Amino acid sequence: MAVTQMPGIAASRVECGADTLRIAWSDGHDSVFHAIWLRDNCPCTGCRHPENDQRLFDITAIPLELGLADATVGADGLIAVSFAPDGHEARFDPRWLRAHSYSDPARGERRPAPRLWGRELEEAPPVFDHAEVSTDPRALARWLRALAAYGFAMLENVPLVPEEVTRVAELFGFVRETNYGRFFDVRSVARPINLAYTGMGLPVHTDNPYRDPVPGLQLVHCLEADADGGESVVTDGFHVAEVLKREAPGAFELLTRHAVPFRFHDAGTDLEARAPLIALDDLGRVTAVRYNNRSAAPFDVPAEVMPDFYAAYRRFAEILQRPALEVGFRMGPGDLFAVDNRRVLHGRKAFAATGRRHLQACYADWDGLLSTLHILEAREE
Amino acid sequence: MAVTQMPGIAASRVECGADTLRIAWSDGHDSVFHAIWLRDNCPCTGCRHPENDQRLFDITAIPLELGLADATVGADGLIAVSFAPDGHEARFDPRWLRAHSYSDPARGERRPAPRLWGRELEEAPPVFDHAEVSTDPRALARWLRALAAYGFAMLENVPLVPEEVTRVAELFGFVRETNYGRFFDVRSVARPINLAYTGMGLPVHTDNPYRDPVPGLQLVHCLEADADGGESVVTDGFHVAEVLKREAPGAFELLTRHAVPFRFHDAGTDLEARAPLIALDDLGRVTAVRYNNRSAAPFDVPAEVMPDFYAAYRRFAEILQRPALEVGFRMGPGDLFAVDNRRVLHGRKAFAATGRRHLQACYADWDGLLSTLHILEAREE
Repeated sequence: MAVTQMPGIAASRVECGADTLRIAWSDGHDSVFHAIWLRDNCPCTGCRHPENDQRLFDITAIPLELGLADATVGADGLIAVSFAPDGHEARFDPRWLRAHSYSDPARGERRPAPRLWGRELEEAPPVFDHAEVSTDPRALARWLRALAAYGFAMLENVPLVPEEVTRVAELFGFVRETNYGRFFDVRSVARPINLAYTGMGLPVHTDNPYRDPVPGLQLVHCLEADADGGESVVTDGFHVAEVLKREAPGAFELLTRHAVPFRFHDAGTDLEARAPLIALDDLGRVTAVRYNNRSAAPFDVPAEVMPDFYAAYRRFAEILQRPALEVGFRMGPGDLFAVDNRRVLHGRKAFAATGRRHLQACYADWDGLLSTLHILEAREE
Repeated sequence: MAVTQMPGIAASRVECGADTLRIAWSDGHDSVFHAIWLRDNCPCTGCRHPENDQRLFDITAIPLELGLADATVGADGLIAVSFAPDGHEARFDPRWLRAHSYSDPARGERRPAPRLWGRELEEAPPVFDHAEVSTDPRALARWLRALAAYGFAMLENVPLVPEEVTRVAELFGFVRETNYGRFFDVRSVARPINLAYTGMGLPVHTDNPYRDPVPGLQLVHCLEADADGGESVVTDGFHVAEVLKREAPGAFELLTRHAVPFRFHDAGTDLEARAPLIALDDLGRVTAVRYNNRSAAPFDVPAEVMPDFYAAYRRFAEILQRPALEVGFRMGPGDLFAVDNRRVLHGRKAFAATGRRHLQACYADWDGLLSTLHILEAREE
C-alpha cells in the first residue's frame, strides 16, 4: 500500500548511537532505525536509479560491520546520516522516516484490520453508477475503495452489451484469462461442464480454489434475468473465519494449519491446487478463505487428524450458512457485482430452468486494482 | 496433482469398524478411512454430478453422527460401504482408495520433494526444440515436465518473430497481462523505467515480487544478441533456501516467519505486495522464494528483530551468489528460456550499451501449464 506522508509531524529529538538512530516524534511516537536499514534505504542518486527509483546495489555490497558516525538535522530539514567505516552519507526527509517507522505501534497501523460485515450491509450496500465510474476518476476511486474495503461492491446501469464485464475489469486492471476464456457465460445449459451452468442453487463458495494462483477478483454482469429465483448471496469469509476463531479456536487452528486439495477436471482441463481453507499472514491475520463444496478433492490431512478436521470443516460450513452473515440481493439486467475471491463467498438460490437468466463473468487480480487506486488517490491529493 | 492409479495393487484385507474402514494392501501399505471421509467422497450419481463430477451436496447435509454399517467386496471388485444411520451406500474402486490413502507413508509420497540443482545442470541443461514442442504433444509434455521438475527449461530455434513469446506461452496456458503489457521488450533504452532496460548487470532475482499474485512463470525470448556480455544466469532458489536452512537454521526461520514489502512505482503504476522471502507450505517445505534487491521496499519487521533479519537476508544473498549454485548460459537469437518465477532466480551480466540486444518476455501461470501437462500425460497412458 502506498505510504501516506504525515505532513504535520516533525522530529522533536534525534539521537545518534553507534548502531542506531533514535527519533522522538512530535506526535509522541518513538522510532529506532538501525544503521544497516538506513544504509539499505539511502535515497541518494548513487544508491537509487534517478529515473526509476530502483535500488542500485545488492545487500552484499554494504560493509559487513556497518555503524553510524554522525547524524545532523540540516537547514533544509533533512536528517543527514553518515556511516562508519566508509563515510557514505544518506539524507532522509523526516516525514519519510516517520512514515516508514518499524517501531510499535507504527508497524501495526500500517496494516489495518479489515472492516468485517454481515447482513447489515444490505441496508446500505456499496452500489455505484457505471457511467460515473467510467468517466469520473474520483467515482472510479470510490468504487475501487469500497471493493478493497468490503471485498464486495456493485455497479448499476452497466450497458447490456456482451463482454462488457471485461471492459469493466479494464477500468482498473487486466482480465485473467483461464480455460473458461477471457469471460464466460453463466446460464442454464443442457450438458453442463460445471454446476454453475445449471439451474440448481449454489451454496456460497469461492471460485476456482483449484487454480494456482486463485483468481483475486471475480466480476459478474447480469444481461438477462426473468427467471424466478436466482437471488444472489454474498458472505464475508473473513467474518466467518473470525466467528470460527472466537467460537471454536481449535477448529480455526486446524483449518489454518493443514492444506487440502481442490480439483476440477473435464475432457481438456485438469486443475488441482492445494491450500488451507483459511490462510494466515505472518501476523496471524486471515488473508484468504477457500471454500467450495463442489470442487473440494479428497482431503489428505493426517489420519489421526481427519475426524477433528471434518468437524472443523463442518463448523465452518455451518457458520457460513448463518442468515446474519448473508447479504442477499437480486441481480437485474445491467447490474454487476465484484467480489474479492480470496475473501468473499458468493452463491445463488435455485432458479427456474425454463426462464431466461444470463450472466457474464470474468476474473481479474488485485495488483492491477490496487495500483490504479493508489495512482487515482495520489492524483486527488 | 493428478493421482496416479496403481493397477497392480489390490486390497488384501478389508475390516469394517463402527467409524472406520481399514484396508491392508498387497503392497504392504495400511490405510484407515473414516466414515465421514468415505461419505464425503461417495462417487454415486446422487452425490456427484454425472456430467462434470462435481460434488452435489454440502458437508452440512451429511448426518452429524455418521458411522459405518457394513463393508463388502463385490464380484465386480468394488468395495461397497453402507452408512449408519441413513443406509446410504457408496461403492469404491479399491485402486481409487489406495491412490487417495491418507495414512503415512502414502501422504508424503503424493507430495514428492523437488529435485534441487546447481552448476552441474550446465552439463545437461533441459533444452528442447521449438518445432518439435509445437507439433508433437509428447515433445510438449517433455518440455513442460522438465520445466515443472527443474523450474527452468529452454527452447531453441524459436522463430525470430515479434510476440512469438506469447505464442509459446499459449502452447500450454494463458499469458498474464500486466502494466508492462501482454509482453514486453527488454533492451537498452535512453530513459529506462526499469533497470532491466539498461545495459547494467542484473544480479539474480525473481521478477515482480511487488505483484500479488506474483507471476508464476516468466518466458524470455532472444530476438537479437550481438552485444558483448549479457550472459544469462539462473539459480535454483529452493536449493539456496535448503543451503541456508542447513547452514543457518535461525536465519532460514527468520526469512520464513516475517513478510516484507516490495514496491514498484512510476507515473502510472504503483504496485506493492508483502510476502516472506521464503514461503513454506503446511509441511514446512519451501513453496516460493522472492528476492529482488531493486524493488525490496523498506523492511518493517519488529525493531528488535531487524539486525538479525538483515544478517539473515545478507546470508541468503551470499549463498545466492555462490558459483556452485549458478547455471550460466548465453542466449542467442531464437533461444527462449522459461523459469518458475516462484522458485528460480534469473539475472544477467552487464552488456555493452552500444551493441544490439533485444529480448521479449511475458508472464504466465502454473495452473494452465500443469493442467496441460496432466491432460497430455493422461492421453499418453
